[in-house]
Amino acid sequence: RIDGDRLWDSLMDMAKIGPGVAGGNNRQTLTDEDAEGRALFKSWCDDAGLSMGVDTMGTMFMTREGTDPDALPVYVGSHLDTQPTGGKYDGVLGVLGALEAVRSMNDLGIRTKHPIVVVNWANEEGARFAPAMLASGVFAGVHSQDYAYGRKDLEGKTYGAELERIGWKGDEEVGARKMHAYYELHIEQGPILEAEGKDIGVVTHCQGLWWLEFTLTGREAHTGSTPMEMRVNAGLAMARILETVQEVAMAALPGAVGGVGQMQFSPNSRNVLPGTVVFTVDIRSPDQAKLDGMRAEIETRAAAICDEIGVGCAVEAVGHFDPVTFDPELVGNVRKAAEELGYSHMNLISGAGHDACWAAKVAPATMVMCPCVKGISHNEAEEISKDWATAGAEVLFRAVLETAEI
Amino acid sequence: RIDGDRLWDSLMDMAKIGPGVAGGNNRQTLTDEDAEGRALFKSWCDDAGLSMGVDTMGTMFMTREGTDPDALPVYVGSHLDTQPTGGKYDGVLGVLGALEAVRSMNDLGIRTKHPIVVVNWANEEGARFAPAMLASGVFAGVHSQDYAYGRKDLEGKTYGAELERIGWKGDEEVGARKMHAYYELHIEQGPILEAEGKDIGVVTHCQGLWWLEFTLTGREAHTGSTPMEMRVNAGLAMARILETVQEVAMAALPGAVGGVGQMQFSPNSRNVLPGTVVFTVDIRSPDQAKLDGMRAEIETRAAAICDEIGVGCAVEAVGHFDPVTFDPELVGNVRKAAEELGYSHMNLISGAGHDACWAAKVAPATMVMCPCVKGISHNEAEEISKDWATAGAEVLFRAVLETAEI
Ligand SMILES: NC(=O)NCCC(=O)O
Ligand SMILES: NC(=O)NCCC(=O)O
Repeated sequence: RIDGDRLWDSLMDMAKIGPGVAGGNNRQTLTDEDAEGRALFKSWCDDAGLSMGVDTMGTMFMTREGTDPDALPVYVGSHLDTQPTGGKYDGVLGVLGALEAVRSMNDLGIRTKHPIVVVNWANEEGARFAPAMLASGVFAGVHSQDYAYGRKDLEGKTYGAELERIGWKGDEEVGARKMHAYYELHIEQGPILEAEGKDIGVVTHCQGLWWLEFTLTGREAHTGSTPMEMRVNAGLAMARILETVQEVAMAALPGAVGGVGQMQFSPNSRNVLPGTVVFTVDIRSPDQAKLDGMRAEIETRAAAICDEIGVGCAVEAVGHFDPVTFDPELVGNVRKAAEELGYSHMNLISGAGHDACWAAKVAPATMVMCPCVKGISHNEAEEISKDWATAGAEVLFRAVLETAEI
Repeated sequence: RIDGDRLWDSLMDMAKIGPGVAGGNNRQTLTDEDAEGRALFKSWCDDAGLSMGVDTMGTMFMTREGTDPDALPVYVGSHLDTQPTGGKYDGVLGVLGALEAVRSMNDLGIRTKHPIVVVNWANEEGARFAPAMLASGVFAGVHSQDYAYGRKDLEGKTYGAELERIGWKGDEEVGARKMHAYYELHIEQGPILEAEGKDIGVVTHCQGLWWLEFTLTGREAHTGSTPMEMRVNAGLAMARILETVQEVAMAALPGAVGGVGQMQFSPNSRNVLPGTVVFTVDIRSPDQAKLDGMRAEIETRAAAICDEIGVGCAVEAVGHFDPVTFDPELVGNVRKAAEELGYSHMNLISGAGHDACWAAKVAPATMVMCPCVKGISHNEAEEISKDWATAGAEVLFRAVLETAEI
């Protein structure tokens, strides 16, 4: 069995780096705090006898050797980067849960046929650089590295330049590694497990996503002296598009969500009607046809709204993945592990995107989920219990051993 | 007659300081660029033989002596600060038009009974620190200086600290000066004069304003894994309030406007439903009852919208002035000057707020307006012709001489 106290202590130690303002974390990707978190993680891996490889996207691969020199490794991990006002567990539990599995193998003197690689994927959150799951996306061949390097944060800094700046650009070619399998432990980030009173989510699918970045072009004008009929009001068009996103998502229930998290007015002055309004619509569904239908309907209705007001409307897809079906054998391993350990469990569709979704393109992959309080995540108030974390890591440990073969 | 070429050259020289990105200016109040603009203006005033006084709000008073030691001065001016993406004429024409009047008096050897004071009011725009017309508001006793010093920009810097930093905090007590009269030349910032083919706007009134800063409190949550029915979506509430502002303004036509220029999402991440959304509603009308009625209706409907979604809703009035009626005698002087000079003219209600609105609380005051192309202002594309500027300054010159007495 794994050591739940050690896992919890590591979670709390990592949470000291990049503290937030309300008990959570701000350790966004490729910041100084990210570099500090990586260094701490590396020191723990050194202590556990793991050897490090870093690829040119900045993803960290920490290897525990196997007994068969020809066997491909089993990869286990998640991400250490956070939202600007993120929680202590989103991603971190998956990396440190994988490390705990390896530490426990050391303690118990367990050798596996396949090597085990603990992974910390770079820029999973996509908060600073869209899209999310960027490094795993390049690994899976979904994005080119040039595309990834050119992604910009709100200050105009690029992924490539920031990766060099923090000193974590490695020399391994991205995606050159071959995987035997990929497992990821993660908090649910939704309310279902807690509401159903289950310890473990057996993740069978992940819903698909579109991030649609709208750039609305109105005419900058004085809010006082510009008559209503002369306005080309990009803010008004934005408001109508937000209402449309809500309507389209509600009409697509069940199995659909839609909302807007990022918004920029320019010039953002109280007495100037905005010249441009830029915002990102986030829509998701486990049903491919529904997801693409929502996108089409939102774009059509947004174009009509903008036409009526005279506002220019450009839409760029800055993030996308199709719904994913995880590997049945690995899913079965997770379910069996939960059963053998006596944890209650249920099947889940992941509402959030995860690196496992891209890994699934290049290897058999799945996930283990544990509950989080009230489903709250992407919020500093994100909370889980030590028992939940322990159960999740325990199931991960057992499923990984199954695949890595003792 | 005044020297229209000299006035135009000064406008173009001032526009070199704090250049914008599209031919206009970014010379926001209490920035380094503001300090540079003030220094240039002072050097011109020195050359014209004016003596400087600066009050503790940073307003510059440049005095040309009169012949009667007991006569109160006639104040003439506007502001040199701009919007973040502002034009070259909004405010600047009024300050440099006043300077041109004084330069012309020097050229023509004209002495006046009353001193003439050319004024550059601090923070007219309110773009960086709300409310607009802040220094003239303190001068008129509408705001306390402590309130003004504590106003914050989006980075949290205060008016008081920034005024010290740029070195333009004077020693004169604000509002200690007594005015015989106040005149202000300004571009219309609206479309009426150009559409009607008139050279001069005789400004009889100014419409009133409310700036209502809404702070909506939702729950930060994951955009993917949070089911629609569990969301406390402050962005959706914002969208509905923007639509309400539009509806209320349209229903109050004619003589009403409403819009939103400033918007902040927090944490402003693509996959996080916002925890807070802060934005400022700007509503105006020349009719006091209509203005206050619009405010009440927007606040009532916004509260209901937020209640329904479960979002917290706090409203703070961060800017306000009642509709203003300008002094009939001074208004008559402007009309007479336009007539004597052979300029076409019409009565106007100012759509924008001006320092003249606060000056009107403590002295007889009025304004002269000239057209601007297509009514575009608070936009780097703001444009006027040299002929329009010259006509406006000419009328200002003659009306000021009437009041200052040769
Ligand atoms: N797990 C997680 O929050 N990932 C970020 C990508 C997403 O928005 O789903
Ligand atoms: N003239 C002008 O744009 N003043 C700023 C205050 C306002 O918004 O009316």
